Amino acid sequence: MATYILRISSPDEKGLIYRVTKILFEGRLNIVGNDEFVDDQGRHFFMRTEFAGDCRPEELQAQLKAALPAAHIELDRPRRRAVVVLATSEPHCLGDLLLRHAYGELRAQIRAVVSNRPDLESLVRRFELPFHFVASEGLSREAHEAALLGVVQGYSPEYLVLAKYMRILTPALVGRYPYRIVNIHHSFLPAFVGASPYRQAYARGVKIIGATAHFVDEQLDEGPIIAQSVIPVDHTHSAGDMAQAGRDVEKVVLARALKLVFEGRVFVSGNRTIIFD
Amino acid sequence: MATYILRISSPDEKGLIYRVTKILFEGRLNIVGNDEFVDDQGRHFFMRTEFAGDCRPEELQAQLKAALPAAHIELDRPRRRAVVVLATSEPHCLGDLLLRHAYGELRAQIRAVVSNRPDLESLVRRFELPFHFVASEGLSREAHEAALLGVVQGYSPEYLVLAKYMRILTPALVGRYPYRIVNIHHSFLPAFVGASPYRQAYARGVKIIGATAHFVDEQLDEGPIIAQSVIPVDHTHSAGDMAQAGRDVEKVVLARALKLVFEGRVFVSGNRTIIFD
Amino acid sequence: MATYILRISSPDEKGLIYRVTKILFEGRLNIVGNDEFVDDQGRHFFMRTEFAGDCRPEELQAQLKAALPAAHIELDRPRRRAVVVLATSEPHCLGDLLLRHAYGELRAQIRAVVSNRPDLESLVRRFELPFHFVASEGLSREAHEAALLGVVQGYSPEYLVLAKYMRILTPALVGRYPYRIVNIHHSFLPAFVGASPYRQAYARGVKIIGATAHFVDEQLDEGPIIAQSVIPVDHTHSAGDMAQAGRDVEKVVLARALKLVFEGRVFVSGNRTIIFD
Amino acid sequence: MATYILRISSPDEKGLIYRVTKILFEGRLNIVGNDEFVDDQGRHFFMRTEFAGDCRPEELQAQLKAALPAAHIELDRPRRRAVVVLATSEPHCLGDLLLRHAYGELRAQIRAVVSNRPDLESLVRRFELPFHFVASEGLSREAHEAALLGVVQGYSPEYLVLAKYMRILTPALVGRYPYRIVNIHHSFLPAFVGASPYRQAYARGVKIIGATAHFVDEQLDEGPIIAQSVIPVDHTHSAGDMAQAGRDVEKVVLARALKLVFEGRVFVSGNRTIIFD
Repeated sequence: MATYILRISSPDEKGLIYRVTKILFEGRLNIVGNDEFVDDQGRHFFMRTEFAGDCRPEELQAQLKAALPAAHIELDRPRRRAVVVLATSEPHCLGDLLLRHAYGELRAQIRAVVSNRPDLESLVRRFELPFHFVASEGLSREAHEAALLGVVQGYSPEYLVLAKYMRILTPALVGRYPYRIVNIHHSFLPAFVGASPYRQAYARGVKIIGATAHFVDEQLDEGPIIAQSVIPVDHTHSAGDMAQAGRDVEKVVLARALKLVFEGRVFVSGNRTIIFD
Repeated sequence: MATYILRISSPDEKGLIYRVTKILFEGRLNIVGNDEFVDDQGRHFFMRTEFAGDCRPEELQAQLKAALPAAHIELDRPRRRAVVVLATSEPHCLGDLLLRHAYGELRAQIRAVVSNRPDLESLVRRFELPFHFVASEGLSREAHEAALLGVVQGYSPEYLVLAKYMRILTPALVGRYPYRIVNIHHSFLPAFVGASPYRQAYARGVKIIGATAHFVDEQLDEGPIIAQSVIPVDHTHSAGDMAQAGRDVEKVVLARALKLVFEGRVFVSGNRTIIFD
Repeated sequence: MATYILRISSPDEKGLIYRVTKILFEGRLNIVGNDEFVDDQGRHFFMRTEFAGDCRPEELQAQLKAALPAAHIELDRPRRRAVVVLATSEPHCLGDLLLRHAYGELRAQIRAVVSNRPDLESLVRRFELPFHFVASEGLSREAHEAALLGVVQGYSPEYLVLAKYMRILTPALVGRYPYRIVNIHHSFLPAFVGASPYRQAYARGVKIIGATAHFVDEQLDEGPIIAQSVIPVDHTHSAGDMAQAGRDVEKVVLARALKLVFEGRVFVSGNRTIIFD
Repeated sequence: MATYILRISSPDEKGLIYRVTKILFEGRLNIVGNDEFVDDQGRHFFMRTEFAGDCRPEELQAQLKAALPAAHIELDRPRRRAVVVLATSEPHCLGDLLLRHAYGELRAQIRAVVSNRPDLESLVRRFELPFHFVASEGLSREAHEAALLGVVQGYSPEYLVLAKYMRILTPALVGRYPYRIVNIHHSFLPAFVGASPYRQAYARGVKIIGATAHFVDEQLDEGPIIAQSVIPVDHTHSAGDMAQAGRDVEKVVLARALKLVFEGRVFVSGNRTIIFD
């Protein structure tokens, strides 16, 4: 029997769950998992349902749309997402993604890795994936991004993953992939925004460092947070030691966030995420 | 508008959510929060719904029972649970509960504290609650427990909380409060079961210690786990230092477990818990 | 045999450990524990030594001073520190300190609790400690603080503990207790500085909240960090839920920081702490 | 200036630190970092000193030996350790080590990977390292191990790393690499020893799973613990989900343990480790 994932986002009103589950019940579909949440602030309703059974997806989607005219409805099979990874020169997050991809844990198909630096080519080649170096020197931000976008679009990705990509994307590019770009940030948000976060953390004498995976929106480092984690440090850690500890957190947090996103478990509500895990 | 908590446990079948939400919708009741889970192993369905609106609870419960004849259904208002706390001589968990109780965070009404030792009386008296010392010396386990039960039952508690109560309860007593006795265990389950767990942990050179809050069933330290947490330790910790670190974990884990239980968020499925938090 | 704690802070140079341990060895004193650290940035040396044996402390201190003329040297017996606690109206941190004090875990003698609000009096009275309400209404900051200081100084505390004291201390008061005032901050530093941190955390959709215990210096919420910890949260947590989760972190972090400080394990190096635990 | 790492393990007596630091001071060597610990149980003294300066290591070692005749003394330069990795079929730990090795973070030189299964060959080949499949079918444990040892010894490793190697080593092999074999265990020790640990964890309904890196000694899964870590799970995790979460913990814990071991920060004291980090 086929399995489906139904995602619904709607202004809240009475009877939403009833109307959805009625359609599924009458279609003889079996709910395997179900999550709902109403965001108190925005009075918005979110629902994710996994169900199994025989159905014609277009018909079902039409029925649901008729019953919930104000809702945004997505109906999909579980499947590997097409992804392009952007990176600059640090190998730890990219390498971890390539490994997970190689042994089938990523729930994605990495179609290519694109970089503004040549450093990571040999790592990507080990995994027999296309690598594109799109140089930025001598180019304006817009010209570089146009070149980058040309390469990226050739792979028709659903998602972009920024695995330590150290350049800022323009709103134009971000707008093409709304809530479909996931970044790993080298610190807790909103702390230590900017360059040299570990030097800032060292100077401040923090006892914990962390990492944040988030969707990219038009504000740098300010999109909805998907996952965060931390690791303890102490006075014996230099800024370099903190950076190394941070790398281990970064790669785990990025992988966790991507798993959640690629399984359709993440909704965006304003600047927050609703995560059904 | 009144708020209600509906808890349903049922053998799984198609249409359960639909049938429940239909009744709520037709009763013009507004679902505020909703969680469901199907235990893959036992094919059992669990659902917790918070809803608001005007309703006659007995009528509603009858309607639900008619629609889900095989289900176990509980319908209740959010309310403070009547509790008796059992403790022996360590003050850290009991003290923490008394404080939370005093400032209204416990979601329970502690009716009395009962102990097999006199040590904690002054602590309990600080909070103007009844304290009963039920001596066990010279008594058989059965005789002591009969005396204990006499005191406990006088307070008609819904739940018993074992806040470092160091005696084993008989199956007879446990059977009177099925999944209504919460214990805090001085270690991870299933590790280091038995006496002197911190000495065992020290001897083993562990780098992490933890605590487990669980329901008591007829197997000692073996009931369904509600909450667990850990704290790192190292070679500089003596067994005593580990015990002190452990106390801080124990009191936080016990409080978290009680919050979950008293809010009706915990279901028992075989030897596991389903927790909707 | 008596036990002593020796704390040395000195500009770094060769032979410091040798000179110190030579004096202890010739005095037939037995080193039980020893920690050293050289701060790379400031080229400063820190050492904490626990030793046991018969000695005349004044003589020993003079010998050490002669051998390390540039060093700051403290020689002391392990002892309970005299403390005044300042609080405003939240009971969770204060209550936790009172409990630990009552059962002998705090390594301090709480001489009094002083507040700018009357709310916490009954809690303090339960533990038979002096409570002083120093009203601030109608007074300038300076006038209120002068009244407060009058009360505090009457107890000759070595340390002040700010257990959710919600007023800002003036540099004048802070200067009287250099690195002897410990505060618990309702968030990670440097994130969410200011009012309503949990509302800020909620609005930002964070997945982790934390707490920071730090020395107070003349910059608000900016003194050297002693301890930090975190707790995971998710989209189901309201700002109020986050605040409650935060309270559990705050009280544990504050207690941990005080244990470190009162055992003489914390040195301040610029804006960072060196902690020998 | 050259840097050295001095490791001393000795029955405890007065003056040990003094005697060591005297020799270093007189040799005009500058102590960069220093840690000592006395194991209360065994009355044994451990010391690790990093120092910089010009010295003749053999002479210095002889001086130290003369001053501390009962001590075990190791003097070494910081260097990459020669390692052979043993693995069976799971790629997550091995892949993580290969990545860290490739980008220079492992403090080791992986000379070869040896396996009792052919599955991981392609992964190892990506990193251009030797891979040896030593089949066990049809062989006695002793015969297989003899074949394995033949391959391993050809690479003269200082350390063996068991990166999910699923066969039990004989005491004979373990005895050749005393406290030089590091294993990653798929659970907390001492919990869930044996096969299918995640199935056991699922059946027990645990809320936390973890991993333990330890030295291998003659008791299976019972050697001194080097590092442990945990990750929270809940009722929605199947045994397979728990295994996946466990893999992320395993690879991070193994890498952390190896960093500590390869930097000479780990001492073994009975069945416990002393770790100077």
